[in-house]
Amino acid sequence: MNLLQDLNWRYATKRMTGAKVPQEKLDTILESIRLSASSMGFQPYNVFVIEDQEVRKQIQAVAFNQPQIVEASHLLVFAAWDPLTDAQVDDYIQHIASERGVKQETLQGFGDSIKGMIKGRTADENFQWAAKQSYIALGTALVAASMEKVDSTPMEGFQPAALDELLGLKEKGLRSVSLLALGYRDEEKDFLAKAKKVRKPSEKLFLKVA
Amino acid sequence: MNLLQDLNWRYATKRMTGAKVPQEKLDTILESIRLSASSMGFQPYNVFVIEDQEVRKQIQAVAFNQPQIVEASHLLVFAAWDPLTDAQVDDYIQHIASERGVKQETLQGFGDSIKGMIKGRTADENFQWAAKQSYIALGTALVAASMEKVDSTPMEGFQPAALDELLGLKEKGLRSVSLLALGYRDEEKDFLAKAKKVRKPSEKLFLKVA
Repeated sequence: MNLLQDLNWRYATKRMTGAKVPQEKLDTILESIRLSASSMGFQPYNVFVIEDQEVRKQIQAVAFNQPQIVEASHLLVFAAWDPLTDAQVDDYIQHIASERGVKQETLQGFGDSIKGMIKGRTADENFQWAAKQSYIALGTALVAASMEKVDSTPMEGFQPAALDELLGLKEKGLRSVSLLALGYRDEEKDFLAKAKKVRKPSEKLFLKVA
Repeated sequence: MNLLQDLNWRYATKRMTGAKVPQEKLDTILESIRLSASSMGFQPYNVFVIEDQEVRKQIQAVAFNQPQIVEASHLLVFAAWDPLTDAQVDDYIQHIASERGVKQETLQGFGDSIKGMIKGRTADENFQWAAKQSYIALGTALVAASMEKVDSTPMEGFQPAALDELLGLKEKGLRSVSLLALGYRDEEKDFLAKAKKVRKPSEKLFLKVA
């Protein structure tokens, strides 16, 4: 099985060469994000796909000047919905009904349960929940990238409020959650490129119920 | 590329047959979790691997009686660290030093930056952050399972406080975050087994910077 080899190969790349990721590989990574699992299938987030170098320079300025932001081929920004609304749920239910060729009424109980969950939580709890869903998609994208032998850097190190302002996220009902640089490692410049991958040993990560 | 076919094949399985997942496949899924990306490589969570049927019945009782909990082959419980402590960081730094054969002193700046991050946040913010890291691992596990043609159900529908009590998590410095049932779909009983997969269309998920 190649998956484990690919996961061993990947690491959070600190320096990239600027080489471009072919469109087909990018499309596979994006499609893996689109197909990612999401609680109740709701997918309460959007993903910005940014190639423009000027925009990336501006993002770099609010992200501790991390070089891979501009050295990457593409930069993804995962942004979670804030607030969550009944209208989003109605859209979703309508979409399921249309895709599966069933009447919307048959999905009303499902829609009501999502709305009930949203109403039962604070706005911040809803945002945290939406953000967590985006991490499932981030995890999926990291696997897909490694399988395409595309390097990746997931990043939480940025000023969310400044990034939201820069991308006009508030007006779109979004808040930035994470960044993902996609590109190719610069083995000369990246001190981590040849470092041994360190992961917790199985016996410390996996526990048995006593 | 099979990855996209595998992601299309997977869905949140509601009913399972009870058939056992072979150890080799389970090991691959667990190893994918162990190799998952994690902010700063910290992996601030543990994963319980539960096969015992009695324990699963008790978990089912605090998880809205979802049948796949007992119909699965194995049930995983993702639990995030709460609280985050300096001692955890020291352990981590020691582990890196030992794995890479470098002196601990060379990693002090790195350790201090993790400690600073932890101190700069509230206990709840730290837990939320740790929980998010576990969602990257959950996302990775879902991909790995689909590639092994093992069905999976990620679940947030349970009473966290009751589950924490049941598994004695508080004493271990853990809080439950999500469940993952691994097994095989029961196509007869699962109304979702033949339903069309519904995902947001690309043009609604992926946005361009204006």
